[in-house]
Amino acid sequence: MERIRILITGGTFDKEYNELTGELFFQSTHTADMLRLGRCLLDLEIETLMMIDSLQMTEADRARILEHCREVPETRIVITHGTDTMAETAAVLGSGLKGKTVVLTGAMIPYTFGSSDGMFNLGTALAFAQTLGEGVYIAMNGLWFHWDNVRKNKQMGVFERLR
Amino acid sequence: MERIRILITGGTFDKEYNELTGELFFQSTHTADMLRLGRCLLDLEIETLMMIDSLQMTEADRARILEHCREVPETRIVITHGTDTMAETAAVLGSGLKGKTVVLTGAMIPYTFGSSDGMFNLGTALAFAQTLGEGVYIAMNGLWFHWDNVRKNKQMGVFERLR
Amino acid sequence: MERIRILITGGTFDKEYNELTGELFFQSTHTADMLRLGRCLLDLEIETLMMIDSLQMTEADRARILEHCREVPETRIVITHGTDTMAETAAVLGSGLKGKTVVLTGAMIPYTFGSSDGMFNLGTALAFAQTLGEGVYIAMNGLWFHWDNVRKNKQMGVFERLR
Amino acid sequence: MERIRILITGGTFDKEYNELTGELFFQSTHTADMLRLGRCLLDLEIETLMMIDSLQMTEADRARILEHCREVPETRIVITHGTDTMAETAAVLGSGLKGKTVVLTGAMIPYTFGSSDGMFNLGTALAFAQTLGEGVYIAMNGLWFHWDNVRKNKQMGVFERLR
Repeated sequence: MERIRILITGGTFDKEYNELTGELFFQSTHTADMLRLGRCLLDLEIETLMMIDSLQMTEADRARILEHCREVPETRIVITHGTDTMAETAAVLGSGLKGKTVVLTGAMIPYTFGSSDGMFNLGTALAFAQTLGEGVYIAMNGLWFHWDNVRKNKQMGVFERLR
Repeated sequence: MERIRILITGGTFDKEYNELTGELFFQSTHTADMLRLGRCLLDLEIETLMMIDSLQMTEADRARILEHCREVPETRIVITHGTDTMAETAAVLGSGLKGKTVVLTGAMIPYTFGSSDGMFNLGTALAFAQTLGEGVYIAMNGLWFHWDNVRKNKQMGVFERLR
Repeated sequence: MERIRILITGGTFDKEYNELTGELFFQSTHTADMLRLGRCLLDLEIETLMMIDSLQMTEADRARILEHCREVPETRIVITHGTDTMAETAAVLGSGLKGKTVVLTGAMIPYTFGSSDGMFNLGTALAFAQTLGEGVYIAMNGLWFHWDNVRKNKQMGVFERLR
Repeated sequence: MERIRILITGGTFDKEYNELTGELFFQSTHTADMLRLGRCLLDLEIETLMMIDSLQMTEADRARILEHCREVPETRIVITHGTDTMAETAAVLGSGLKGKTVVLTGAMIPYTFGSSDGMFNLGTALAFAQTLGEGVYIAMNGLWFHWDNVRKNKQMGVFERLR
């Protein structure tokens, strides 16, 4: 079985509720818990690259993600990412990376809030990472999108093709 | 977008707890709720074929599922199924069906019990149904299996390849 | 069975997560759902007086709550309230109301986030409202507090006696 | 603050789902987790006396619970118990115990199934245990019942007074 690397970058997926301040914040990723709940038996390497809201993500952060995707030994990579700028990061990876299958995914609701789309999205992302060919993709809403044909519709909170 | 049909046959996936008797039973499928939670935007047709524990599934039931897969207009089909005899049904479909992509999936824990693997499995199954070629497959534990190379390891509660 | 009135004023108890903006907001109260989940058979009248964060609550709001407690026919009242200024509202009611048993309660985590203290607190509040004598109380952390001997410890996120 | 003892005897409250067999079983009690979730700050001593389905509870078991209630230093006791024979145990305690306040409670749905009445019931039981006078009571459905005036209505799954 080919090992898949999961790169954590933060996003709603991993946000938590701070009951003292009433604000959302990051602690550590819940990806391992989610995979345990999904009884996932894939050969996985989970690595936290950053834990940020994707609205805070800079071009330097995106360059770092790209560099990291190039350096890791795995050719199949899933990236958890905030939804707001997921398409921007996908574009940076899509135009800069060769020879790998990268699938970005995220969630509209934090996993810790109980009724999240995160488990479903993580399932689709890991499945697409196993079966799609070389390229950079977004897995959201049960669908997969090429990096150069996707945007987040912020009014609807869903991803859609450009054309 | 190509329409995918989801055929419901029952299994732990859709079981509920009867608080008056303390027993598990079937009411109606939760698949539509799960897809809503997953913000799934696939073009789907959900159809309940039967609601049974897969240990109760007869050869006549399997023949009916096969016949149904042949008759429906969709060429991509996901089947929710109890895990105990999922491999048997996959074998009946695998040896009898041509020209379609069928992915069977299920859950070890009922969706209604809150910490189910069902959301994750449904995500993988729908992703595999979009990307795998003609054939009959099982999607469990984050993996996909060919119908003729899979069994449930009942001691461990996981699916594994035969060879 | 003596009817108990539940007055809803908002607070974390009833907050929801807006997946489009990432912010918490109020829709309608979940108290009826919570009571159904608790299989509660008390004779209850649920009334939404306001739906606000208790940090936004004005003296006019508190006067309105006091007036309302006086006017309703029930002598036993539970009030759901944000925790930040719950003690202030309790003080207004405690010094202004006679002949009724009023219990304020709330939650540190929204009910909709799955792992809330709300169900537990609602249970204690309804029990104290049945058994405590005339007076105004806060029910939090499994404990009951007299209105004139309670404060929220905001560093710890718990309620404590003053002396 | 007066210490309350919580005696665990099993019941649906603490049942878990065995995903290998599809059956419900007992592991260890979830009471401490539930109290943590409820941010409970009462001075509590939790003790597991037995972990059984209350339909299996014998007269010897009930005698042991009675004996235990007599021996423990606390005068306020909450007992978690299966609902099917909760009234029988309450009767044994009610006719045999003096000078203590004992509140029995349980759940219709296991805590581990996510949408349980257990948190609500535990909240009411702990509140009644603090405020009711000497005697043996059942706390279910938001209500409290004297041991000699209660039965479980098994058709409805609720507790009710005899007269």
